[in-house]
Amino acid sequence: MTQAFDADGRMRHLLTLDGLSREQLCALLDRAGNIRDAAMGRTQKRSTLCGTTICTLFFEPSTRTRSSFQIAAQRLGADVVNFDASSSSARKGETALDTLKNLEAMGVRGFVVRHPEDGAAEMLAAYAGEGTTVINAGDGRQSHPTQGLLDMLTLRQSKGPDFSRLKVLMVGDVRHSRVARSDLQALRTLGAGEIRVCGPAPLLPDDDTLAGCVTGEDFDSMLEGVDAVMMLRLQRERMEEGLVASLEDYHRAFGLTAARLRRAAPDAVVLHPGPVNRGVEITEEVVDGPQSLVLRQVSNGVAIRMAVLEALLG
Amino acid sequence: MTQAFDADGRMRHLLTLDGLSREQLCALLDRAGNIRDAAMGRTQKRSTLCGTTICTLFFEPSTRTRSSFQIAAQRLGADVVNFDASSSSARKGETALDTLKNLEAMGVRGFVVRHPEDGAAEMLAAYAGEGTTVINAGDGRQSHPTQGLLDMLTLRQSKGPDFSRLKVLMVGDVRHSRVARSDLQALRTLGAGEIRVCGPAPLLPDDDTLAGCVTGEDFDSMLEGVDAVMMLRLQRERMEEGLVASLEDYHRAFGLTAARLRRAAPDAVVLHPGPVNRGVEITEEVVDGPQSLVLRQVSNGVAIRMAVLEALLG
Amino acid sequence: MTQAFDADGRMRHLLTLDGLSREQLCALLDRAGNIRDAAMGRTQKRSTLCGTTICTLFFEPSTRTRSSFQIAAQRLGADVVNFDASSSSARKGETALDTLKNLEAMGVRGFVVRHPEDGAAEMLAAYAGEGTTVINAGDGRQSHPTQGLLDMLTLRQSKGPDFSRLKVLMVGDVRHSRVARSDLQALRTLGAGEIRVCGPAPLLPDDDTLAGCVTGEDFDSMLEGVDAVMMLRLQRERMEEGLVASLEDYHRAFGLTAARLRRAAPDAVVLHPGPVNRGVEITEEVVDGPQSLVLRQVSNGVAIRMAVLEALLG
Repeated sequence: MTQAFDADGRMRHLLTLDGLSREQLCALLDRAGNIRDAAMGRTQKRSTLCGTTICTLFFEPSTRTRSSFQIAAQRLGADVVNFDASSSSARKGETALDTLKNLEAMGVRGFVVRHPEDGAAEMLAAYAGEGTTVINAGDGRQSHPTQGLLDMLTLRQSKGPDFSRLKVLMVGDVRHSRVARSDLQALRTLGAGEIRVCGPAPLLPDDDTLAGCVTGEDFDSMLEGVDAVMMLRLQRERMEEGLVASLEDYHRAFGLTAARLRRAAPDAVVLHPGPVNRGVEITEEVVDGPQSLVLRQVSNGVAIRMAVLEALLG
Repeated sequence: MTQAFDADGRMRHLLTLDGLSREQLCALLDRAGNIRDAAMGRTQKRSTLCGTTICTLFFEPSTRTRSSFQIAAQRLGADVVNFDASSSSARKGETALDTLKNLEAMGVRGFVVRHPEDGAAEMLAAYAGEGTTVINAGDGRQSHPTQGLLDMLTLRQSKGPDFSRLKVLMVGDVRHSRVARSDLQALRTLGAGEIRVCGPAPLLPDDDTLAGCVTGEDFDSMLEGVDAVMMLRLQRERMEEGLVASLEDYHRAFGLTAARLRRAAPDAVVLHPGPVNRGVEITEEVVDGPQSLVLRQVSNGVAIRMAVLEALLG
Repeated sequence: MTQAFDADGRMRHLLTLDGLSREQLCALLDRAGNIRDAAMGRTQKRSTLCGTTICTLFFEPSTRTRSSFQIAAQRLGADVVNFDASSSSARKGETALDTLKNLEAMGVRGFVVRHPEDGAAEMLAAYAGEGTTVINAGDGRQSHPTQGLLDMLTLRQSKGPDFSRLKVLMVGDVRHSRVARSDLQALRTLGAGEIRVCGPAPLLPDDDTLAGCVTGEDFDSMLEGVDAVMMLRLQRERMEEGLVASLEDYHRAFGLTAARLRRAAPDAVVLHPGPVNRGVEITEEVVDGPQSLVLRQVSNGVAIRMAVLEALLG
């Protein structure tokens, strides 16, 4: 990740949370926290990025993440160009790298990249010109750093800055999840007291992703006494691939219900990166209930993205 | 419609014209009229909504209506996010309500909603958070309030503010038309002298939509002496459904030709919500002729949408 | 092209480079050159077009050209509406002209039009209202004037303002290329010393497009001593139409390799309008090499489009 910092040690790209120090990570959370507090009164438009063009370069559809970045950029006064690679010159056989180099030549300074392949953001950053910033908005199964940051901000807001006494449980398809990888990296960096991971064996990774985590397949026992439950989204592809028998089976074993949630600490909070499959990963009652921070995560997402854009491009 | 007003009686959402008083309706027309007059010199950008993010949330394609709202919002200085639900997380099974709640959490304050189902805008408004405004840009067959308002502004500009002496003829597929319902509500509220409705029987509604209207199937006699002809668009689906035999038959019976238009008052005006099926509802000669207000309606649309956005969010 | 100028001789539309005088053409290049120089420090946002709405009206997909115009317009402070005709009311049978008249009625003052048919931009300009400007962003095989201008700016930057001593070689599918036609018009207007054109006979036009050019099918001999090589893109359709046997054959005969490029003048430059089919028209080595101006062309594209927008709408 050497290319993520420039010669002065200033952060230039945000490709992964892996390798960020606790100080660097906390500085971003602090900045986003301040933005949130300032926004509490009335939305205020800043002019930090006035005259800067930012491109959302998405090779995978995701209107929510794209909108979140777009809103963050607009609040900072930037101009935004949305580049949807499915309806673009990508059809004409142009590669992701060609697209980036072309938009860079047009004066785009910041690229928010989503790509289905592991390492795509890092590759693009390696070839980006001086003065160009790449922000990974999710690539392959590897990394989704702004999601990791917003989850940490959300946890910190409700549980305080000392993560060492926190017991966090992550549930679901960790194997295929870039959200999980970024969350786990950040939780370790912030010194989370205990990280438990629970899911059906075929959906747990067999590499070192889970190093230091307590793992298990019995959701009920894993829930005992945890302070935060981080649910992951179940992609329907898992059924087609035979990794999960049915949505009903999955829900029975790993769905978070109000009854189950009572096993966690009384003030436990529930997170989910969205979009939620209601009734699969989580019941209506829980997702809309008082312990759910799902919409708070979404709000924090804009603050985090403003903080990242400002830190890298401001 | 109680949720359309806040505790102080201030309008919060615009979901339908049904239930708006004559004063409320005229206040919006006055405001839009002033905007039009001010714009006559040179387009001027206002900053009323600077720092406010508005989302066009379209579950049905309509580039024209979306562009009209987008231009209106930009002229007021707002930031606009276009959310096309066909290329979005809607694919991932997210509901309209989830989408709205998520964008609301991102700080979007105004939603311009188009949806194929009756009552969708009202439902979304019912669940919207405090401080969030929903504007119905057309839902199902029920309501298209800004179209109703722009049609009234257009009529008022050419016929004056006293609608009591006006004879208005509406022609076509009233049964399936949200434009017709909003127009009829507004015409009644403004006290139109006589409302005639003409169309093939299978395309006229059998509920109380036409209460107080003079109805008939003979276009020629219905046209006699009217001051305004409001043509409706014929959707091609009506042919597939067997409600209309052919475009030719429809045009023969209900197409507005120059010859036919001579039966109306000499200074009668012609309106159509667009896009016009030239040669079906209306001939080239009439749509491009001196009595046609079709493009005036489009211009007024931007002024009405600016007025509505400013009144609800300013 | 009379409609391209208003009563005072001021340029109103940009539809083709055909008929522009050397002075008019140079004035646009000078203006774009100044914009580039000013931008060299730090991107600066201007407010020349603040309050002006510009619409990119694309009836053919081209995200790159659309983005270039969008960025240019945003830098001038304009509001931009992107109208993608494939996902629009075009579906409802609305014509290009109806779309333009509607958007014009909404207050759009500038239209950037791309259309698959020859003469589409000219037709739209002929019907555009007073005060409305049409900029041709490529129609049919006929004209792509901003590409022609940006290519001239690129040549002028590296070869100086006197084109009379320049030997320029254009290579490829001239017959189907609007880029080629605009480049040839501009090269003639600027008095290029020698224009050579090389390509397989079925891809060379048989009308007066090549009047005054030296033509031939032997790439190697045509390359001898030229100062600039302007490569054209090969559309895959040419294979399907049987005009080209295979990509390999094409590359063997007309692909620009480093070895071949040595036949040109030592300081010869290479241009390509993009997107490049790497390994077909041109090898990786050449396109990414020191003589390639491909990305410089892209940068100049934004400056040219800013200059054109400012000249026509400012």
